[in-house]
Amino acid sequence: MLHRTYNDQNCSVARALEVVGERWTILILRDAFRGVHRFDDFQRSLGVARNVLQTRLLRLVDEGLLERRRYQEHPPRHEYRLTPRGEDLWPVLLALMEWGDRHRSAGEAAPRAVHRDCGGALTQRCLCSACDAQIEVGDVELRYDGSGTRAA
Amino acid sequence: MLHRTYNDQNCSVARALEVVGERWTILILRDAFRGVHRFDDFQRSLGVARNVLQTRLLRLVDEGLLERRRYQEHPPRHEYRLTPRGEDLWPVLLALMEWGDRHRSAGEAAPRAVHRDCGGALTQRCLCSACDAQIEVGDVELRYDGSGTRAA
Repeated sequence: MLHRTYNDQNCSVARALEVVGERWTILILRDAFRGVHRFDDFQRSLGVARNVLQTRLLRLVDEGLLERRRYQEHPPRHEYRLTPRGEDLWPVLLALMEWGDRHRSAGEAAPRAVHRDCGGALTQRCLCSACDAQIEVGDVELRYDGSGTRAA
Repeated sequence: MLHRTYNDQNCSVARALEVVGERWTILILRDAFRGVHRFDDFQRSLGVARNVLQTRLLRLVDEGLLERRRYQEHPPRHEYRLTPRGEDLWPVLLALMEWGDRHRSAGEAAPRAVHRDCGGALTQRCLCSACDAQIEVGDVELRYDGSGTRAA
């Protein structure tokens, strides 16, 4: 049976997608992570229409994922910087990158995220915060009722 | 400077979004992870128009993320099951869920992913596969040139 009472409004995945569930939005954030901050640079990188880009950037500012900062007074110029809330999305980006690498690369090398200090490849692991077990997809259960142990 | 030669076609995030970069698509996969397999159940869960749902499901089958299986002969009925390629997306779902929980919950409890065995909360960690360091966002560097050490 489906849990009809747990609809989109009560699902953290759906709530996240309300903000980041558009292709341009995720690609804007991707660019911000790799050091793009100015409107014209986003525009060149993405090749997206300027009005679409403007709308998406302002939405991300409104939602607190990007901060709009003036970097020049005459004439006034602004840039867009990730906030802590925006930076918290990097595991999503990393997971998308890993999946794209594995399943959509068609043999072509794409930019890779590596450990700055040693150049090693990054890997995401899911752990249980209570018993520290490494979690695979079959070990996951969704709980709907507030039961279950929170992390110690 | 931007890396103009590494456009969308050569970015694993962009490639991933070509398949999963639509809100309904991610929510269909979310439902498949929580045990929804039949057209009418997806439709009830998502409240999406039937033609949109049909298009999205067939796209996911074409892309090898879902498998369409006949479960009844008279009349013929099919269900949709995650393939290994589809299952590999669960870190993306988990990362979206964690972010939504932290930043978009508005104090309401949403369904939580827990460790089936002990009920503990799940947590994603990023590790370096070469030196085993735990990686934070500031430790990540993007490499575009094929340099850098692959995992040992």
